[in-house]
Amino acid sequence: MSALEVLSFTPTPDQYAWTFGGAAPLARIRPGTVLRVFTEDCYAGHVRSEKDLVSDVCNFPFLNPQTGPFYIEGAEVGDTVAVHFIDIEPARDWAASTTLPLFGALTATHLTALLDEPLPEIVWIWELDRKARTCIFRAHSGDFTTALPLEPFHGTVGVAPANLEVRSALVPDAFGGNMDTPEMRAGTTCYLGVNVEGALLSLGDGHARQGEGETCGVAVECAMNTVIAVDLIKGRPCPWPRIESETHIISTGSARPLEDAFRIAQVDLVHWLAEDYGLETMDAYQLVTQGVLSPLANVCDTNYTSVAKFPKKYLPKVEAMRGADAKLRSIAAEYRRMHP
Amino acid sequence: MSALEVLSFTPTPDQYAWTFGGAAPLARIRPGTVLRVFTEDCYAGHVRSEKDLVSDVCNFPFLNPQTGPFYIEGAEVGDTVAVHFIDIEPARDWAASTTLPLFGALTATHLTALLDEPLPEIVWIWELDRKARTCIFRAHSGDFTTALPLEPFHGTVGVAPANLEVRSALVPDAFGGNMDTPEMRAGTTCYLGVNVEGALLSLGDGHARQGEGETCGVAVECAMNTVIAVDLIKGRPCPWPRIESETHIISTGSARPLEDAFRIAQVDLVHWLAEDYGLETMDAYQLVTQGVLSPLANVCDTNYTSVAKFPKKYLPKVEAMRGADAKLRSIAAEYRRMHP
Amino acid sequence: MSALEVLSFTPTPDQYAWTFGGAAPLARIRPGTVLRVFTEDCYAGHVRSEKDLVSDVCNFPFLNPQTGPFYIEGAEVGDTVAVHFIDIEPARDWAASTTLPLFGALTATHLTALLDEPLPEIVWIWELDRKARTCIFRAHSGDFTTALPLEPFHGTVGVAPANLEVRSALVPDAFGGNMDTPEMRAGTTCYLGVNVEGALLSLGDGHARQGEGETCGVAVECAMNTVIAVDLIKGRPCPWPRIESETHIISTGSARPLEDAFRIAQVDLVHWLAEDYGLETMDAYQLVTQGVLSPLANVCDTNYTSVAKFPKKYLPKVEAMRGADAKLRSIAAEYRRMHP
Amino acid sequence: MSALEVLSFTPTPDQYAWTFGGAAPLARIRPGTVLRVFTEDCYAGHVRSEKDLVSDVCNFPFLNPQTGPFYIEGAEVGDTVAVHFIDIEPARDWAASTTLPLFGALTATHLTALLDEPLPEIVWIWELDRKARTCIFRAHSGDFTTALPLEPFHGTVGVAPANLEVRSALVPDAFGGNMDTPEMRAGTTCYLGVNVEGALLSLGDGHARQGEGETCGVAVECAMNTVIAVDLIKGRPCPWPRIESETHIISTGSARPLEDAFRIAQVDLVHWLAEDYGLETMDAYQLVTQGVLSPLANVCDTNYTSVAKFPKKYLPKVEAMRGADAKLRSIAAEYRRMHP
Repeated sequence: MSALEVLSFTPTPDQYAWTFGGAAPLARIRPGTVLRVFTEDCYAGHVRSEKDLVSDVCNFPFLNPQTGPFYIEGAEVGDTVAVHFIDIEPARDWAASTTLPLFGALTATHLTALLDEPLPEIVWIWELDRKARTCIFRAHSGDFTTALPLEPFHGTVGVAPANLEVRSALVPDAFGGNMDTPEMRAGTTCYLGVNVEGALLSLGDGHARQGEGETCGVAVECAMNTVIAVDLIKGRPCPWPRIESETHIISTGSARPLEDAFRIAQVDLVHWLAEDYGLETMDAYQLVTQGVLSPLANVCDTNYTSVAKFPKKYLPKVEAMRGADAKLRSIAAEYRRMHP
Repeated sequence: MSALEVLSFTPTPDQYAWTFGGAAPLARIRPGTVLRVFTEDCYAGHVRSEKDLVSDVCNFPFLNPQTGPFYIEGAEVGDTVAVHFIDIEPARDWAASTTLPLFGALTATHLTALLDEPLPEIVWIWELDRKARTCIFRAHSGDFTTALPLEPFHGTVGVAPANLEVRSALVPDAFGGNMDTPEMRAGTTCYLGVNVEGALLSLGDGHARQGEGETCGVAVECAMNTVIAVDLIKGRPCPWPRIESETHIISTGSARPLEDAFRIAQVDLVHWLAEDYGLETMDAYQLVTQGVLSPLANVCDTNYTSVAKFPKKYLPKVEAMRGADAKLRSIAAEYRRMHP
Repeated sequence: MSALEVLSFTPTPDQYAWTFGGAAPLARIRPGTVLRVFTEDCYAGHVRSEKDLVSDVCNFPFLNPQTGPFYIEGAEVGDTVAVHFIDIEPARDWAASTTLPLFGALTATHLTALLDEPLPEIVWIWELDRKARTCIFRAHSGDFTTALPLEPFHGTVGVAPANLEVRSALVPDAFGGNMDTPEMRAGTTCYLGVNVEGALLSLGDGHARQGEGETCGVAVECAMNTVIAVDLIKGRPCPWPRIESETHIISTGSARPLEDAFRIAQVDLVHWLAEDYGLETMDAYQLVTQGVLSPLANVCDTNYTSVAKFPKKYLPKVEAMRGADAKLRSIAAEYRRMHP
Repeated sequence: MSALEVLSFTPTPDQYAWTFGGAAPLARIRPGTVLRVFTEDCYAGHVRSEKDLVSDVCNFPFLNPQTGPFYIEGAEVGDTVAVHFIDIEPARDWAASTTLPLFGALTATHLTALLDEPLPEIVWIWELDRKARTCIFRAHSGDFTTALPLEPFHGTVGVAPANLEVRSALVPDAFGGNMDTPEMRAGTTCYLGVNVEGALLSLGDGHARQGEGETCGVAVECAMNTVIAVDLIKGRPCPWPRIESETHIISTGSARPLEDAFRIAQVDLVHWLAEDYGLETMDAYQLVTQGVLSPLANVCDTNYTSVAKFPKKYLPKVEAMRGADAKLRSIAAEYRRMHP
């Protein structure tokens, strides 16, 4: 039996990656490796109080720092990287959300360009009660306060893009990136098709929690201590990011307008049912129509992200994506035995 | 104590309404009335086997028959009708879903007009096991079968539109109509702003179940026996349909592109938190961003429908929409006592 | 030789139609008739100075009054009405444009719902110099003034919709309506598919001129004295409004998002080249790709309108739409001889 | 008086740039330089007959080769590069257009993902009659042939993007790139905001002609011999590509959905009228509304491109963009005197 390879990595600020593609690998890892990483928040740690407006304290385009990229040995175009999230835990007892001029779903933006005045720029500091597993909201106006569940996930995880491109870490697309889906939580496995040798995996943008759609454009943003296990599926492509949990298979699509993001995710789910579960395409279309859950991920980023989620219990009992999720769960179990 | 008024109504085929607006009222009811109605399926009952293609057996535009309209006494522009769904129960032990040429989210349509060949037209008959509360899918190709939960709801409920319009029962818009959201289930209250005297409430399009987005354009379509209680909120407008359950408040938006439907629902939820829960607008924007659930309703109809859903337990303890939901729940309880 | 039938009609304010469909015919006409009509401006004549804000002086939903409907004898579903614009002439020496809260392409609207403050409401009165054929703009701020060409057209022309619907005169769709394309000028013939017996033709919304897209939502709005000749093409349907000029054939599409409006118009043009000019579909697709002009019509109304325009001189010499344009031009010539 | 600097450059195939950003400069030039370049067609010259299907003969992602980049001395973030097209002339007497699976406006694509079968892949070879200035179309089916005007332009011109990105040469965005607007013809000046030191200007994708919208996704694609003059406007940013001709100022926007591309271009034009022509914003909004021409550029690429075009003759007599167009016209005149 092979020993578990565990690599810990906390980047220094000069080591952050700001893009997918175009950054030199921080380290090379073998499939099966467990990575323990620190990820800084999307502000690169510069927003620390309600006086720290993003437009004052952040240095564009140095937003959304990624930890990585990690070069995965043996990864080639046509393979798929599988990333299992073993643990995602806030590194601080507070997190910050903000509004930003010309950003967010309910205001004029650089792309939905209007003549209206932008909304005001505001910071909310959320207290994280890690014992009670809550995020505490305090209204700026009045004394209303409420505690929402702490439900941490990574807004951003991805590999280098295809087509010779280098994309900002703020962008979600076929390579993954800034999808901002709350489905990317501990206990799930994310599948990312490989576009360049070594895949070049990075992650960041921890969210203590977020509603579906990330309406104002910014979640409860938090540095994270995260543990992932990484595997490689040789010779099996994955056209758009997929996620697998113990209970669901999940396709994602990122595009504009939002109906195109929806179409991508739903078509991918139909094809996935055909590929791995043996359904004929039109039967899969019908079954998806009646059984899919379609929570939105983000409706604020460069591309919008829509999610298509199907319960495994209603499907044939097969191992999807060549059983990568099960294999990574066993690595996660072994890791937990070693690091209780 | 006033006696409960209960009105039963089963329309004859010549009594169906095919539009919102433009149809003469079937009956006048007082606020507080309980209505027991039969609603035919969206095919007007013409699809009865897998040989009954919609384009053969249905008679356009006579699709999606509505039971109604009901004239609500005292309803005027600027009021809101509240409809509590006491019970929604399939009237048959089978239901039908279909594909239709030039309809559905994953194919060229009359509006997303392309030169591609349309998909084939197919009918799936689903068996409904009302005791086991399941809907049984049988694949056309191969022998795969699976049972999804029976989760009945009304795809269509609405009032006469504003602006002197008459709209097909296939359309969702500010007046309600064909929103196709699985949130419209028994136990919820739907709020609809009144646009004409008497409001002219109709409902139909029962679905034994449906995924979020109604991907192929057609749910598990079924005739229903439904019981609703109807109330009127005087002097309180409701710009877009809202839903309230025991646990959530829910805003809806119907438009194209899908991001506009999302924006409408999210803006309405922000305004609702401001109106009824006392939050300042930017605080409400922040709280919605972190706490909202955004399941899609339909991405196939004339307008797409997006839903914004917020858990009541994280909000101040107030009665939204002047307490109409609580009042209707007590009518529902009384009705159940009388009709156990 | 038959005498030309000429009918003059100036509606009284209580005779305006505010919808397509749902209004009783003002008159019955035979195919071949020349109609001389007055159309009031979109404000129903209530905006007369820069102090007359629409939200003060207009009475919603009584906007965009139409002259009509006219019942065309013999018109049945599956036929097409052909309307040739012989003359469109401003009835006044001034016209008004405005901004309106929550309306226009460059601001938040009821559908592109945002939290931003709406833009200010402003009226601009344009002087029309009918001799010089100019429209004179005077800036509110500063003393800049400029004269744009007077290029009058009808923003709205249509027939009763299909599907049992009644639509506001502010809506463009397959029945025509508020398309707001500057192509609807004197000298062109508009083709509209018949959806109900008698077709029920109306027109209005005269514009002294307008840019492509009607960016702020409101053109240089003006009452018009207009002369049209109306014909009927039996047994030939027309799925979306088409226009023919001496030099071009023009398809239109009205939908959201704007790419769907584009797709509708371009697909219709490809099919038109196949139907009337004998090109195979893929060849027509190629020829349209290289030769089409695609000026936008409106990007502000309930549906956006896109236009696809192809020069006749590059096509086989055939008579499109069964030669209706040529026939109506000869009626126009005869009318001009009689009314020099 | 300074002598004109003229640099000629014909890239070898290994020198093509396939991206904006990420490629090393081919040469450094001073502002005021005239560049004479050869650009290969979008197929990198691999489609030479109607048997050469793109999916057979081209090597993805090596499509749309650019000639460049050229490092412009002194160019810094916040400056604008001005590129005047002196001459754009087909380098061959034929050009090729094609359909491609999952590409084009009237078919399912990777983003408008559907279950429909893709359209067939076809090549059309167009003959270019450079004396008669025509492009000759021959239908595949039947014997129809027609000659459209030869109206050459560059589909692609741009600089390195902002935000540390490298984008495929198939993408249009704020840095320019694959806008595919027929407005980019000889005699116009294109303005591109500088995002990185040296700007890194490239161009390619010559089109012998193209309709507005590039409906099937591919124009009449042709290698070009092109002459441009390049200048630098110091300290004046340009947020989206602009074009100036002798008669018009033109703004462009590239985004999805198409209405966002429209909004960007129209907002930019409004701001341009404010910046250079002294109009107050709401007055500019009104004037643009009534005077703008809005021809579409492409509705097929990664982002769609919309154009907003205003006639100079209706504006105050000022020199826009600090008079760069006039200066470059004088360089062009001098070049023509030297190279008659």
